Amino acid sequence: MRKVTINDIAKMAGVSKTTVSMVFNNKDENISRETREKILNIAKELNYIPNSIARSLATKKSYSIGIILPDITNPFFSEIARAIEDEANKLGYNVVLCNTDNKVKKEEEYVKLLISKLIDGIIFIAGGESKRSIDLIKNNNIPFVLVDRYIDGYEECYGVFCKNYDGVVEGVEYLLSKNKRNIVFVNGPKDLEISRQRFQGYKDTMMKYGLFKEKLVYESDFTLEGGKIVTQRIINELKDFDAIFYSNDVMAFGGIKVLLRNGFKIPEKISIMGFDNIQISQFIEPELTTIAQPIYDMGKRACSLLIDIINGEENIEKVYYFMPKLIIRSTT
Amino acid sequence: MRKVTINDIAKMAGVSKTTVSMVFNNKDENISRETREKILNIAKELNYIPNSIARSLATKKSYSIGIILPDITNPFFSEIARAIEDEANKLGYNVVLCNTDNKVKKEEEYVKLLISKLIDGIIFIAGGESKRSIDLIKNNNIPFVLVDRYIDGYEECYGVFCKNYDGVVEGVEYLLSKNKRNIVFVNGPKDLEISRQRFQGYKDTMMKYGLFKEKLVYESDFTLEGGKIVTQRIINELKDFDAIFYSNDVMAFGGIKVLLRNGFKIPEKISIMGFDNIQISQFIEPELTTIAQPIYDMGKRACSLLIDIINGEENIEKVYYFMPKLIIRSTT
Repeated sequence: MRKVTINDIAKMAGVSKTTVSMVFNNKDENISRETREKILNIAKELNYIPNSIARSLATKKSYSIGIILPDITNPFFSEIARAIEDEANKLGYNVVLCNTDNKVKKEEEYVKLLISKLIDGIIFIAGGESKRSIDLIKNNNIPFVLVDRYIDGYEECYGVFCKNYDGVVEGVEYLLSKNKRNIVFVNGPKDLEISRQRFQGYKDTMMKYGLFKEKLVYESDFTLEGGKIVTQRIINELKDFDAIFYSNDVMAFGGIKVLLRNGFKIPEKISIMGFDNIQISQFIEPELTTIAQPIYDMGKRACSLLIDIINGEENIEKVYYFMPKLIIRSTT
Repeated sequence: MRKVTINDIAKMAGVSKTTVSMVFNNKDENISRETREKILNIAKELNYIPNSIARSLATKKSYSIGIILPDITNPFFSEIARAIEDEANKLGYNVVLCNTDNKVKKEEEYVKLLISKLIDGIIFIAGGESKRSIDLIKNNNIPFVLVDRYIDGYEECYGVFCKNYDGVVEGVEYLLSKNKRNIVFVNGPKDLEISRQRFQGYKDTMMKYGLFKEKLVYESDFTLEGGKIVTQRIINELKDFDAIFYSNDVMAFGGIKVLLRNGFKIPEKISIMGFDNIQISQFIEPELTTIAQPIYDMGKRACSLLIDIINGEENIEKVYYFMPKLIIRSTT
């Protein structure tokens, strides 16, 4: 078998190539319904696949969107990407994947590449102070939506975020209700707005009860290895602590390993709380108590919001805030 | 700031639009080096992004490849996808992501979509008996590479695979060397060739030592939940067993949870072995002993092989087999 062409269809239908082409491009006002259906049926029968690039060039639409994210092997981002791709596919779009490793230089290169391919829109999960990339996207009039990570000074952009502050407040209140008093907080990288928001939720709540102490605050980098290292430091430096609140799940997994190896009983002696609720929270034993972001819903919303912008819909809500919620499992 | 156009560059360089366009399309034999450099410098300064779609249409190359895979949230596939995207990016290609949930109908739809977008090639991780999809790809003369999962009757296709049989043999031999005798094997879905290969490695080795018993063989579906359910059945049905070999890591994670909850000591009473060595194997505690597939290398190779085919390279090795290796951690 060889590739089916527009010629084959024209021949079988007994019409000209132009007629077939007009039908495929929906410029068929002057073509009889009968002929139109005949052509479409033959195309279907032969498994003919029209070339959509020519149409792209004419309509300036590629029906492709880009996702720029730090790393698809990080489960939080693979879950977001999955939601985005599901929704995009449902709405007739496909998704181009770009991993940046949180490097602003790589982000910029991807932005240029996507724009050169006439991408219809971009979902952008920033790796840092990504102002140059955002400016490039804006100057080229490409619709875009920020997800998860805020960018300072770009509050007027379309975005889908999680109420990080409220989530941490709920988590700390829960630990306090279990009579934990010396709650260590492991913050993420300080240059990320989400880290600042999560830390503020911790600080305000601990202050409210007169329990805030600087020495209970640690910082790490949202990775497993980082979680292990910081936890070893906590064990070495602190005498009294009865709970650790890690500001993402992955650091909590690293922490749990180090605590178990050092003979700490979880949750009897130490309570552990994470943030995100990635699927692996249920893979480990004991299963992790965590603040769940509605990851799938956030990705889905980001995609439908982007496509609304692309389609020029009016009265679109610019920013969506999702409320996280406490999921109590076995580490508290 | 507004979008930079070819007109802006022509004006600033004091040349015609046609001249600028010739430079961008590498049809600049008759243009002086000086003018050429001037144009390129201005373009760079203004952050001009050329439209590559028009070029695509002329050259019939899109510099895009598709990855068709079951589910990006499965860590094995996200790690493969990451390797593919890294390599593609290095070679100037971008990657379109397609999740099929192992459904052949979805695979076919994605194949048609990718072909209609003039994708240059496809990396295909089949979800089952995906013959119709493969035939569609072949009939449209799209270069493609199979990864991880064989498809019966398509042995002559380009592919990157793992020596599943040898990996399991090594794992079983290791368990036997630790004086394990009643080694349970949890197979994956029987309709996948990789499941048949892994099972055969187990069966042949156990037979060799006169230890094979039908009742030690179980089947599940490569998921966490499946691993939990099958392990509960094993505990209920078998009296003597001293090791469980799960034919992928994710099922092993489910199994470990159920065993720990039922008071089994790992590895003192029961040894556990997985297959794949996804990153989570190190997230859990105790860390999983497993047969490591060189996942990153496999993805990277699949991508460079595909691009070699796209570029019409000659003397390409058609099929690559990677040798897995035993990684001893704390569950044995």
